[in-house]
Amino acid sequence: MTFDVVVHVSLRPGIADPQGATIERALPALGFEGVSGVGVGKAISFRVEALDEPSARSLVEDLCQRFLTNPVIEDSEIAISSVAATGA
Amino acid sequence: MTFDVVVHVSLRPGIADPQGATIERALPALGFEGVSGVGVGKAISFRVEALDEPSARSLVEDLCQRFLTNPVIEDSEIAISSVAATGA
Repeated sequence: MTFDVVVHVSLRPGIADPQGATIERALPALGFEGVSGVGVGKAISFRVEALDEPSARSLVEDLCQRFLTNPVIEDSEIAISSVAATGA
Repeated sequence: MTFDVVVHVSLRPGIADPQGATIERALPALGFEGVSGVGVGKAISFRVEALDEPSARSLVEDLCQRFLTNPVIEDSEIAISSVAATGA
């Protein structure tokens, strides 16, 4: 089966986020009020071939730990959805 | 009311994604098979103060068009959820 995966990588609380801080500082000058707590992370999307959803999830978790994130400073959140009718 | 917003910014189809291509090329060497179509985008999260969800959404759409994305090469996807019991 084929699964669509999106891994959302965000900085852990307390880690400096200069991109987010810069966006937040720029907003009032552009006329946007009431926006706070801006954080910028990465969204990595891909397709995975696996037997079932648990095995897809365990592959993606392993991938996150070993390659896609730096677990010292980043958290990851995984969203998996199966792609209908792949016949694989 | 306060709303939690996540804007997922991804490259439009046909735009070169060297980060995604590099990740995809590296995976087999690390022992990960069956991963394809890797794309790397941004995930921008923040809180918005607005009267109701439609006005929050229109503010965020305006923000995406004018500031957070380059509409020539990027698509954006908006997820809004209300934060319970803010009393504002």
